[in-house]
Amino acid sequence: MKSGKKPLNQLGVVEAAGAIERREITSVALVQACLDRIAERNPQVQAFVAYDAAKALAAARKIDADSGQHVLRGIPFAVKDIIDTSDYPTEYGSKIYRNFQPALDAACVVVAKNRGAVVLGKVATGEFATQTPSQARNPLQLEHTPGGSSSGSAAAVADFMAPVAFATQTTGSIVRPAVYCGVVGYKPSFDMIATAGMKALSPSQDTIGVIARSVEDAAFFTLGLHGARTVGSAVFKPRIALCLSRQWDYVKPETLQALERLVQRLEQAGCAMSRIWLPQELEPLIAIQPRLFMYEARQTLANERLLHARHLSPRLHTRLQQGESVDFDEYVSMRQQVREAHWRSQDMFQDVDAILYPAAAGEAEAGLSSAGDPRFGALWSLLHLPSVSFPISLGPQGLPLGAQLIGAFAQDTRLLAVARAVTQAIDPLRAAPA
Amino acid sequence: MKSGKKPLNQLGVVEAAGAIERREITSVALVQACLDRIAERNPQVQAFVAYDAAKALAAARKIDADSGQHVLRGIPFAVKDIIDTSDYPTEYGSKIYRNFQPALDAACVVVAKNRGAVVLGKVATGEFATQTPSQARNPLQLEHTPGGSSSGSAAAVADFMAPVAFATQTTGSIVRPAVYCGVVGYKPSFDMIATAGMKALSPSQDTIGVIARSVEDAAFFTLGLHGARTVGSAVFKPRIALCLSRQWDYVKPETLQALERLVQRLEQAGCAMSRIWLPQELEPLIAIQPRLFMYEARQTLANERLLHARHLSPRLHTRLQQGESVDFDEYVSMRQQVREAHWRSQDMFQDVDAILYPAAAGEAEAGLSSAGDPRFGALWSLLHLPSVSFPISLGPQGLPLGAQLIGAFAQDTRLLAVARAVTQAIDPLRAAPA
Repeated sequence: MKSGKKPLNQLGVVEAAGAIERREITSVALVQACLDRIAERNPQVQAFVAYDAAKALAAARKIDADSGQHVLRGIPFAVKDIIDTSDYPTEYGSKIYRNFQPALDAACVVVAKNRGAVVLGKVATGEFATQTPSQARNPLQLEHTPGGSSSGSAAAVADFMAPVAFATQTTGSIVRPAVYCGVVGYKPSFDMIATAGMKALSPSQDTIGVIARSVEDAAFFTLGLHGARTVGSAVFKPRIALCLSRQWDYVKPETLQALERLVQRLEQAGCAMSRIWLPQELEPLIAIQPRLFMYEARQTLANERLLHARHLSPRLHTRLQQGESVDFDEYVSMRQQVREAHWRSQDMFQDVDAILYPAAAGEAEAGLSSAGDPRFGALWSLLHLPSVSFPISLGPQGLPLGAQLIGAFAQDTRLLAVARAVTQAIDPLRAAPA
Repeated sequence: MKSGKKPLNQLGVVEAAGAIERREITSVALVQACLDRIAERNPQVQAFVAYDAAKALAAARKIDADSGQHVLRGIPFAVKDIIDTSDYPTEYGSKIYRNFQPALDAACVVVAKNRGAVVLGKVATGEFATQTPSQARNPLQLEHTPGGSSSGSAAAVADFMAPVAFATQTTGSIVRPAVYCGVVGYKPSFDMIATAGMKALSPSQDTIGVIARSVEDAAFFTLGLHGARTVGSAVFKPRIALCLSRQWDYVKPETLQALERLVQRLEQAGCAMSRIWLPQELEPLIAIQPRLFMYEARQTLANERLLHARHLSPRLHTRLQQGESVDFDEYVSMRQQVREAHWRSQDMFQDVDAILYPAAAGEAEAGLSSAGDPRFGALWSLLHLPSVSFPISLGPQGLPLGAQLIGAFAQDTRLLAVARAVTQAIDPLRAAPA
C-alpha cells in the first residue's frame, strides 16, 4: 500500500513510519494533516479535549531535524486525558481538575516522545476512566456513543485525527470503544506499559494500552515503546477457542450471529477452531471484578470522595458508596482468589494460542448518556491477560460489531501475531498479497 | 502498660489510641510531645526532612474536637518523602524535586487522615526510594546508617519522634532499616495499601508499608486504614520454617548465631519449628529481581533519566544505564517466570504459618555512604508476600540483629498474629501476663 495514495492523516502507524524513514514525508506534514483533520472535525466529534498546533508542530520539526535513531520517529499520537502530560492540562474527565496542569509527563508519554513520537494533544475520557461518559461522539454516527472510558482515543483514531492513541482499561474501557468506533483496541498484559503518571482507579487492574486502526499499528507503536521493532513471526494455523460463559446471556443476537460467521470464516482460512466453556473456577471471578474495583477505587479516589464529593457524577458517587459494602475480609479473600485465578487461567492456553470472546454486547448505543456495557472485558482485565479487539461485521444500525482475542499472560507478541492473521483473514482487501 | 508511666512521645500506636479513646490524653498533647522530640533530636538524627508544628497541631485540635468515629483518632504519623503530601513539599530524596509541592495527598495519606490520624511531617528517603542514602542517621549510633531507603521512617520511629511512619519497599527498604534501628517493619502483601500518589520505581514490586515500635502497632495502624480493628485471633503453636537459601552465604556469623538462638527460644516457647530449603524453582527469582527492577525503573524514572540525568546520583545513573542490558524479550520472560513463581510460592505455606528468614546481613554498617545490603527482602518483595521484620538480638557493635517472618499472600492478619506471638516470646518483659 503506497502512502502517497491517501491523505496523510489516513496513514497508519506502520505506513507513516515507513514513509518517514524513506523520507517520503516529514513528521511536520503528517502532524499538520492530523491537526487539519482535528480542526475540521473536532467541533462535531469532540474527541480532543486539548491540543495546541504550535506545540505539536514544534515537536515534529525537532524530530525531523534529529539525526538519531528513533523507532517511532515522527509518529503523532493522542493521549487519553487520564494520563498526565507536562505540556497540556490533564482533567481526568472531572470538573474537579479543570485546567489542572501536571508537572510531569506520565512514563508512557515521555518514553514515546523519547522514541521519536509526537504528542498531538489530549483526548476525552470518562470521569476518572469510569463509565460516566465524556462529551465525545462516535464518528461513525454522531448521535451514538463511542463507548468508554477511552471514548476520545477511539473516536480520534476512528475519525483519522490521529493514527494511534494511548487508552486505558480497568474493566472494558479499551476493547469496547475500539469496536464501537470500528477500530482496533489492544490491552496489553498488565503493567506492560508503565502506569506511572496515570490517574489510578483500581490499581490491581488498571492497564494502559492503545487504540489504532490495525493490529499492526497497535503492535508497532506498543512494541516501539520498548525499543522492539517486530510483532514476532506469523503463527501458522492459529489455534483459537471460542470461549462460552454465562456472560453470553448478555450478548445480542446480531453479535452471536457475527461471531458464528467469524468462526466459520476462520475455519475456512485455516485456523484450528474449537469451543470451550469458561473453566468453572474462573466463573466466580466475573462477580468479584466489580467489587474489587469498588474497594480499590474508594482508596485511589479518596481525595475526590472525601474533599470534592459534590463534583463527582451521581453515578460515580453511588458506585463509591456501594464500595462501603465490601469490607476488609472480603477484599483480602478476593485478592487471594484472584491470585489463584491468575495461575489457573494459564491452563486455558495449554492447547490454544488465543481465546475468542465478545468485545461488546452489540453496536454502539444511540445517545450519549451511557457508554455501554463494559462487562466483556472484566474477566480478562482482572486476570491481567492481553487482549485485542476489532470489528468483525456490521449490525442492524450500520455500526460495527466486534470480538476480542485473549492471549496467555505476557505472550503479547504471540497474541498480536494471531490477531494480525485473524484480521487479515476477514478483510478481503488486506488478505490480498502485498 | 499504663500510658501515664512514660513520656507521651514514647507511647505506641495501640497505647496512644487507647489513651485517647479513654480521654486520658488529647491528640494535641501527643502531637506536641512528638514535635518536642523532633525539635530536640532532629538536628542530629535528620529523620524529618519537612515538618510544621502549626499544621500538625491544627490537625490534632480538629480531631480532638471531632465527635465522629475514627479508628486512628489522633494518632500522629510520619510520611516517607517518596509519598505525596498536599501540605508539605515532597522531594523524593532527589535534588530534581527541591521544594516540589504536589497538588494532592497520596491515597494512603488521605485515608489515614480520614481515619483520624495526624500528619507530623515528611521523613527522609533514599533517592527515589533506591539505595542511594539520605542524610538520616541511625539514632542508636549516630555514625551508623539507619539503612534505606526508608531511612527516615525507621530513624524517626526508633528515636520516638513518631509512633509510626509510612515506608515503602521494592527490594528490602522496609525490613532492613527497621531492624537496623531496632524497630518493627511491616511490608504488607503487594498493593494492600494503595500506592496512588507514591512515586513509582518498579511498579510490579513497589509496596507501601509501615515502620512502628511493635508488631501490634504496625498492625493496628495498617488495619485501621482499612477500617478494621483487630489483628485476628492468636495463632496457637505457630508452625514456622527457617528457610535456607544460597543467600545465607551473605549472612554474617553473628546473625547466623542469633537466628539459631531464636529458633531454640521459639521451640522452647512452643512454636513448631522446622527447616526447609528454598524451593529450587524459586532460587532463580533472586537473580531476576534486580533485572526486573532496572527495566521497570527505566520507564518510571524516564523523565528524570532523560531530562535531568546530571542531577541523578552516580549510583542511580549507573543502575539505570545497566538496565539497558535488559531487552524486551528478557523482560517478558521475567514477567512470565514471576507469575508462575507467585503461584508456586503458595506451596511453601502448605504446612507452615510463616517462614523465618534473615532481614539483614548483620548490624547497621558504620558510616553514611551506604545504606546496607537489601538482598534479603528481594525475593519476598518480588513474590508479593507479606513480611514483618524485628530485632532479635544485639551484635558485636551493640546494634540490633534482625529477622523477618514471611506469610502467604494476602494472609497478612495471620502473619501479624504469628509475628506478635514471636516478638512477645522473645521479649521477657512483654511475655509477662498483661
